[in-house]
Amino acid sequence: MTELIYLDHNATTPIAPEVLEAMLPYLRERFGNPSSDHVLGHQAHQAVETARVQVATLIGASPGEIIFTSGGTESNNLAIRGVAASAPPARRRIVTSQVEHPAVVEPCGVLELAGWSVTRVPVTPEGIVDAETAIGALDTDVALLTLMRAQNETGAIMPVDLVAAAAHPEGIIVHTDAAQAVGKIEVDVDDLGVDLLSIAGHKLFAPKGVGALYVREGTLVEPIVFGGGQERGLRPGTENVASIVGLGAAAILAGSRLASESTRLRVLREEFWHILRGRIPNLVRHTPVGHSLPNTLALSFPGVLGKDVLAAADGVLASTGSACHSGVDTPAETLLAMGVTPEVALGSVRLSLGHANTETELAAAADILVAAFDAASNR
Amino acid sequence: MTELIYLDHNATTPIAPEVLEAMLPYLRERFGNPSSDHVLGHQAHQAVETARVQVATLIGASPGEIIFTSGGTESNNLAIRGVAASAPPARRRIVTSQVEHPAVVEPCGVLELAGWSVTRVPVTPEGIVDAETAIGALDTDVALLTLMRAQNETGAIMPVDLVAAAAHPEGIIVHTDAAQAVGKIEVDVDDLGVDLLSIAGHKLFAPKGVGALYVREGTLVEPIVFGGGQERGLRPGTENVASIVGLGAAAILAGSRLASESTRLRVLREEFWHILRGRIPNLVRHTPVGHSLPNTLALSFPGVLGKDVLAAADGVLASTGSACHSGVDTPAETLLAMGVTPEVALGSVRLSLGHANTETELAAAADILVAAFDAASNR
Repeated sequence: MTELIYLDHNATTPIAPEVLEAMLPYLRERFGNPSSDHVLGHQAHQAVETARVQVATLIGASPGEIIFTSGGTESNNLAIRGVAASAPPARRRIVTSQVEHPAVVEPCGVLELAGWSVTRVPVTPEGIVDAETAIGALDTDVALLTLMRAQNETGAIMPVDLVAAAAHPEGIIVHTDAAQAVGKIEVDVDDLGVDLLSIAGHKLFAPKGVGALYVREGTLVEPIVFGGGQERGLRPGTENVASIVGLGAAAILAGSRLASESTRLRVLREEFWHILRGRIPNLVRHTPVGHSLPNTLALSFPGVLGKDVLAAADGVLASTGSACHSGVDTPAETLLAMGVTPEVALGSVRLSLGHANTETELAAAADILVAAFDAASNR
Repeated sequence: MTELIYLDHNATTPIAPEVLEAMLPYLRERFGNPSSDHVLGHQAHQAVETARVQVATLIGASPGEIIFTSGGTESNNLAIRGVAASAPPARRRIVTSQVEHPAVVEPCGVLELAGWSVTRVPVTPEGIVDAETAIGALDTDVALLTLMRAQNETGAIMPVDLVAAAAHPEGIIVHTDAAQAVGKIEVDVDDLGVDLLSIAGHKLFAPKGVGALYVREGTLVEPIVFGGGQERGLRPGTENVASIVGLGAAAILAGSRLASESTRLRVLREEFWHILRGRIPNLVRHTPVGHSLPNTLALSFPGVLGKDVLAAADGVLASTGSACHSGVDTPAETLLAMGVTPEVALGSVRLSLGHANTETELAAAADILVAAFDAASNR
């Protein structure tokens, strides 16, 4: 089998070895239910509370403001529908962007069907929400602003802080889907000025099936799942102890290597881009140079389908669009919202780097992609 | 540290070694996102589909009828609120029992607040729902019957099959919370005649944070979380691949050892009971002799608090009530519903056996519990 070059970290990351190491005792002998009032239960409870401190620390929150969930989708649903359920009757509007993840788009759509208004702020050709436009959409009839911190397809970073600052005086609750941002760039809930922030474990080298929602103290949120009283009643069900421990360990790891990794990946990404565009005339770059995740490079190969390039790129693993939509042959909504033509959008490939990627690997990936582009062009 | 004797398997089970073994590759190199259209994605997708077949096989379902969730609580919520959301306007009543788990009680309560009627069928002094009484509560205004297969506190097995048979001609959808039953007794969706059935991984030697909902083909259920199209749109979010693989492996394991284990545990349980009642006059047994899970023994120690007995029972890990409620000093609702007095109910201890327990271990546990009872009595 060909050596694989994994450039799909925005779809999912491997569990970091340090993270799995931390989890293993909780997958083996430390198997107690945190609600059990005996030594194994207390041990499990303590492990969950330690992880809560670790996750809180990464984003500048208090441990009591962290609710563990089953992942980013659930966190987004809890934030959006949980706020909607406790919003006053005079506030029945949500402001969001045109380029959110389905886990934000769909809950907003459900509320729209239930009679809510949803204002979807457009993005610039760079794929960034214009803060002024977003601020112009805010008013006292708005219950919630939900604006992603970083876009999953292009890596564009949104001015959540600027819009949040304008939202609060209007009494608007602010949520950000930070699934792609946490672990890749610095994320601080006070710097952003958000009330709610979603984290997805498997985007930051923690396992799939675990996530967190930051809920600023005093923010009114109703649960969306009902049962036992776990997670302050906001997210009942026996805690996923081992994976929560993993999320805590991943938070520690992210905090310790974020500065060096973000610089390293940004340099690698730009080198990669320069190699590729030097060898492929008319290669289009969708990822902004500034205001972007350091690891993401969304491109369009000219005159071919992105999926044909990837099919020919033996050993290079990447995505033609959001992994959630793979297999569906329609251009990525995010690119269309940026004003990219459908033809160009169908040529798109998202390359997303991660901790294990090296300069040598990326040089090899560039060779493979150029050859694959040639092959796809000559089909 | 004292050797621990774990008799709290109804709270949670350890992950079986075979199950963890099956999971490990998916916690390491097989980390793809099942939605990704490349070799790691396909591998992960295939693993999820294999697990779906394994879980389906255990309960006599088709693979397409299995929806993976984050656990029993989510499965119950999806079943109950998912059916309610798609029920015709003329059906606005739910029939359930007085002794359901909070993950059923609470969703029913939420619907009640939203204007639904909820009929809670009582139980006999043995803790079993009387089929005739339950059937008498059914009518054409009922959308859903939700009746647990086995009670978490007492192990009582409910006549789901009999009530389901009467429910279907009335056009009622039937759900059973089988979290405590699956892996302990034979569970077959056709024998039970249910349309929906909840499974919780961590009750059957699979990890915490994963579960399944069986949805009979043709049953109308709305999702309760919205996002990507995973799990036929009924449960979006990146699949928890490793834990789903674990649930599949646990299903295989349960199927292979269920017959021998249920016999072995029933014998051990009855021996345990005979030893204890021979040494503690007036010891009360809440678990029925017939119609009960083979592993569960709910008792009340006379004239003492169950929590004082357990506190003195060095090395024996058990529960005084549902683990979800531990720490709260009120008698278990389930026992009160059976007509047990609050005083007797406060003396209760739930001993729930599992695969690792041996005769020797239980003999030691009996000695410890008798001594603990003496100590608690003399306080």
